[in-house]
Amino acid sequence: MKCKRCRRAGAAVELPSHHAAFCPDCFFVFFRRQVTEGIRKLRLLAPEDRVLVCVSGGKDSLVLWDVLIDEGYETEGLYIDLGIDGYSDRSKEKVFSYAASRGKAPIVVDLAKEGIPIPEAARCVRMQECSICGTVKRHFFNRVAAEGKFTVVATGHNLDDETARLLGNLLHWQRGHLARQHPLLPGTGGGLVRKVKPLWRVSEVETAAYGFLKGIDYVTEECPMSEDATSLVYKEALSRIEDRMPGTRIVFYQGFLDPSSPLRKGLEAAAPADASPTPEDGTTADAARARDVDAEEGTGAPRACASCGAPTYTEICSFCRLKERVREARSVRAARGSR
Amino acid sequence: MKCKRCRRAGAAVELPSHHAAFCPDCFFVFFRRQVTEGIRKLRLLAPEDRVLVCVSGGKDSLVLWDVLIDEGYETEGLYIDLGIDGYSDRSKEKVFSYAASRGKAPIVVDLAKEGIPIPEAARCVRMQECSICGTVKRHFFNRVAAEGKFTVVATGHNLDDETARLLGNLLHWQRGHLARQHPLLPGTGGGLVRKVKPLWRVSEVETAAYGFLKGIDYVTEECPMSEDATSLVYKEALSRIEDRMPGTRIVFYQGFLDPSSPLRKGLEAAAPADASPTPEDGTTADAARARDVDAEEGTGAPRACASCGAPTYTEICSFCRLKERVREARSVRAARGSR
Repeated sequence: MKCKRCRRAGAAVELPSHHAAFCPDCFFVFFRRQVTEGIRKLRLLAPEDRVLVCVSGGKDSLVLWDVLIDEGYETEGLYIDLGIDGYSDRSKEKVFSYAASRGKAPIVVDLAKEGIPIPEAARCVRMQECSICGTVKRHFFNRVAAEGKFTVVATGHNLDDETARLLGNLLHWQRGHLARQHPLLPGTGGGLVRKVKPLWRVSEVETAAYGFLKGIDYVTEECPMSEDATSLVYKEALSRIEDRMPGTRIVFYQGFLDPSSPLRKGLEAAAPADASPTPEDGTTADAARARDVDAEEGTGAPRACASCGAPTYTEICSFCRLKERVREARSVRAARGSR
Repeated sequence: MKCKRCRRAGAAVELPSHHAAFCPDCFFVFFRRQVTEGIRKLRLLAPEDRVLVCVSGGKDSLVLWDVLIDEGYETEGLYIDLGIDGYSDRSKEKVFSYAASRGKAPIVVDLAKEGIPIPEAARCVRMQECSICGTVKRHFFNRVAAEGKFTVVATGHNLDDETARLLGNLLHWQRGHLARQHPLLPGTGGGLVRKVKPLWRVSEVETAAYGFLKGIDYVTEECPMSEDATSLVYKEALSRIEDRMPGTRIVFYQGFLDPSSPLRKGLEAAAPADASPTPEDGTTADAARARDVDAEEGTGAPRACASCGAPTYTEICSFCRLKERVREARSVRAARGSR
């Protein structure tokens, strides 16, 4: 099969959802256009932004960084070392080697040094690993962005991730989660940085193909702590539907994002006027989702955590409470050991 | 395993979504309670209703008829003979034999005699079989109900059917379909009868178990014309999710029906005030879904079809237009044959 764009080279990537097949060079053009269109449509990034790209060592985040560098954005990579035996070392290596290939060195947060490596935290606290990991990452996204004067944090969530999450939120009608699900979470000042997902229009397969054809070396293993994640069940269900009806995912997600969609209207109507801090650069429609504050739900403007200063709706933010519980569990163990 | 209700007899039906397992007698009680609760919660039926039960010969509709008879409702069965070779004869036989066992004889509409058997209609008209079948059935539901002075029409759609349809409507954000999806479609007078789905709370597996344990003999084959139906893709996807997370389907559907759900609020807000005929016995909230008029979308009150008098938004209703096209195709064929 020939490339449907240049009609000369052989097609290397077939995309049923776009009725298309591309040679590598034309696929790069297509993929980058999808990403830049996704950025433009939802005004995720401005040319003057300083972008903190969260890189895990997986394909999505490294591809995201690659595209943003190529598009001329000012970026730095943030690698959070979760402290997971073997997996964390292997991912870190991929991040460093990719960064070096672009003449960069990533910012590193080491959770072991911060006193809260994920596996130990999960043993100390009765919470799911993925939930702990979310709280911890959210904390450092805001903190590192503030310290490094970044104007925005970008993560590598792709269309498959976002639609799986949307399906889960719809199946259980999780109103709060639905109200906050968007590729753009506006910043609100007070330590809450804007968060964006520039890969929202591209699928996992497309992202993997881009990474592979670009020769980006990434970890292919899934995080060993997320193996049972329910999001995989939703992802698999949507994959089967997409296989039978190519294009379903993008129609599903774009329909959800449409400001005139009945669900969005209903969610906005339901959000009390004072429920959200005012986004620093957003419209009133953004207000309903400007609440990615800590792990808590709250109304009004968040205050500063009494311990670390992070934005929160409680006195002590959920990150500091988590850390305190790990510290307590450690002293109990140490006391037992010395008896 | 013992029955979790009486704790004496052995369990014959295990229901993970209800954390339950029942012996046959206790399962009958459970199943009937689910159906009557579904009727009560949404006020689908009143004791004085005359119910026209649409029976296809499959498990769902025969089980529905069985439960409604046992619950003391005044019912008659309506069998529409679609004219599908073999399948229609086998289904009709099951309907007659079940009806006879309850001392009843079904009302029969024979589409071949009406000049519009589904397979021939599908060959003549460029429309999907399932879509033609829907138009034709809707027409006869209203007509037979009016002729027989029935106050309501009941169909055997179960929780699996309704959630598969809901998922499809959500994946494509089909606003009109979402606004009209409900176990209760209020009647509006003018030939539009109320339509209800009393089995909305029970799953396909539960309905099949009820039919089997009650000794109801039903056709097990799917309609041969619906084999490629996309609804089966959605059903299968939801089955996989339900297997992993029992109870997801009922949470999904009940959350959708919740009058305070953000989607429902958004759909009601979007429906223009004059878009719907006023339901004869419903609330204003019902108005958004009182539009099961013909296959057309329209605003205001429907008028009577110039040819048959059925409610429609066009001069000639979609059923009469369909019939006319079949008639034309026949004359063309007859003219060719006589040459």
